[in-house]
Amino acid sequence: MCIATMSLSEAYQHCQDQLLEAGLLISSGVPGLYGFSGVFEDVVERFEAAVTRRAKPLKAEVMRFPAILNRKHYLQTTHIENFPDLMGSVHSFTGNEHDHAKLLDKRARGEDWTTSLTPTDVMLTPAACYPLYPTATGTTLTSEGRLVDLRSFVFRHEPSIDPARMQIFRQREFVRMGTAEQALEHREYWLQVGQEVLNSVGLAVQSVVANDPFFGRGGRMMAAAQKEQDLKFELVHAVATSEKPTAITSCNYHLDHFGHAFDFKTPDGKYAHTACIGFGLERIALALFMTHGFDPDHWPSDVKSVLAL
Amino acid sequence: MCIATMSLSEAYQHCQDQLLEAGLLISSGVPGLYGFSGVFEDVVERFEAAVTRRAKPLKAEVMRFPAILNRKHYLQTTHIENFPDLMGSVHSFTGNEHDHAKLLDKRARGEDWTTSLTPTDVMLTPAACYPLYPTATGTTLTSEGRLVDLRSFVFRHEPSIDPARMQIFRQREFVRMGTAEQALEHREYWLQVGQEVLNSVGLAVQSVVANDPFFGRGGRMMAAAQKEQDLKFELVHAVATSEKPTAITSCNYHLDHFGHAFDFKTPDGKYAHTACIGFGLERIALALFMTHGFDPDHWPSDVKSVLAL
Repeated sequence: MCIATMSLSEAYQHCQDQLLEAGLLISSGVPGLYGFSGVFEDVVERFEAAVTRRAKPLKAEVMRFPAILNRKHYLQTTHIENFPDLMGSVHSFTGNEHDHAKLLDKRARGEDWTTSLTPTDVMLTPAACYPLYPTATGTTLTSEGRLVDLRSFVFRHEPSIDPARMQIFRQREFVRMGTAEQALEHREYWLQVGQEVLNSVGLAVQSVVANDPFFGRGGRMMAAAQKEQDLKFELVHAVATSEKPTAITSCNYHLDHFGHAFDFKTPDGKYAHTACIGFGLERIALALFMTHGFDPDHWPSDVKSVLAL
Repeated sequence: MCIATMSLSEAYQHCQDQLLEAGLLISSGVPGLYGFSGVFEDVVERFEAAVTRRAKPLKAEVMRFPAILNRKHYLQTTHIENFPDLMGSVHSFTGNEHDHAKLLDKRARGEDWTTSLTPTDVMLTPAACYPLYPTATGTTLTSEGRLVDLRSFVFRHEPSIDPARMQIFRQREFVRMGTAEQALEHREYWLQVGQEVLNSVGLAVQSVVANDPFFGRGGRMMAAAQKEQDLKFELVHAVATSEKPTAITSCNYHLDHFGHAFDFKTPDGKYAHTACIGFGLERIALALFMTHGFDPDHWPSDVKSVLAL
């Protein structure tokens, strides 16, 4: 569905136009913020169910967190240092009627009325596993460690015409907390299983070493270190264009970063290591629609069978 | 599970403690913000599935929106006038490296670092139907009007010890857009069906005329008018205490408020009227746990049957 002579931005716009026209995505007027049709949503849910079936023998603890996070917990991470441009800080109005009148006055005069707001106790969640770690604070894991099954909407302030780069989207994650060996084993296991699951729905993903979009000059060093240490792998597939494939799933080893930040340990008294796989559910659905067409009734029969379509 | 001699705040705290101890809710450290266990989440999903089955013959259009909303669309509503204290405005960092250093400096000195942020193009969604109306702007409905099936996390800045008063929670909504008659008929129909569905899972709800928590003195007049015009009904049930039952579902007739604000009309050229039913999914799950006990395996067999447990 992509045309070879297009520039990258033309390819993104063309892809977005197609998805909006087909009604799979619904425009909100803000780049990277969409509604989803019932058909789109159904594919997300069915893919998730396939992942759930695949993970069932692992007996992971299921936990679900909403898309907002305790501001104090946010500040225990290094997100504000490394990804300030992606953050979502939630502000509200806590004044009296007089203050409210002033707020409305500012708005009526076309001034910035948000100066009348105050920061709340919450931030938007940057990644599905962030709310998990604070729940482990002060604990010592058993020798088996923990395996947790998460799903959350997450927020990233990065307005884009690329329909696969949304400001709010769902991550289905499996997180392992334990020793370095357990964390690495988890990442390797899921890198393999993630590929298998995606292959089974007709997505021939490539595995690539990757790095996060750290902010600024210091960030470039962080990114290089992350890449050099082979900490993060992404499973990529064409969405808008095969020239620049999209990461639809990622497998990340965090060393003892979160164990240290949130103080949870292994039985030997060391800070625990963590690793996660995150399936980007909207991106996977987009890859499926762009690969197999906009009508799931006409998808290949083996794909329909895996998705119980 | 509630004790008659407790004050209201004691009852809320006791109920919250029980739910946290049972692991159904997971503390985030912020009042009204919780994670959910797999058991809790499963009940939410199964109740929703029961609603879906009940609504299937109606063939509603399915649309799903994330928990954030175009700021411009937010400002087309009267939320900022009527419920400023409940809003969630999303702010992010859009500066350069120098500005970032200043932000981190403010934080290190214990100053308010959020003054370095700027408002983004989005707000947290106050109600599941808000993102729907802008998608109808400029349209004329058919004589049948439209029936839309929605579900969204919504945000309300109202920190509370009442476990049923969450800051972020899910609403499953059915919205009718059409003539005044169609909107009213929708509300009456769903007031009845909502009661039936809730009764079928063992929740003997009461229907009461209600009003929204409008802000300030002007707000008290708005609330009185809403009540006097019988615009909003709530289905209430005990959660923390039977002394103050909780609204677990509401049926709201908006007159032509949204048709006017977002410019969509009926074939006769008048602004469309709208009405919605909203099932408060977390509150319904809480009512189920507080009524039938914390282990769904031991719930009454007729309830288990409706929930396919």
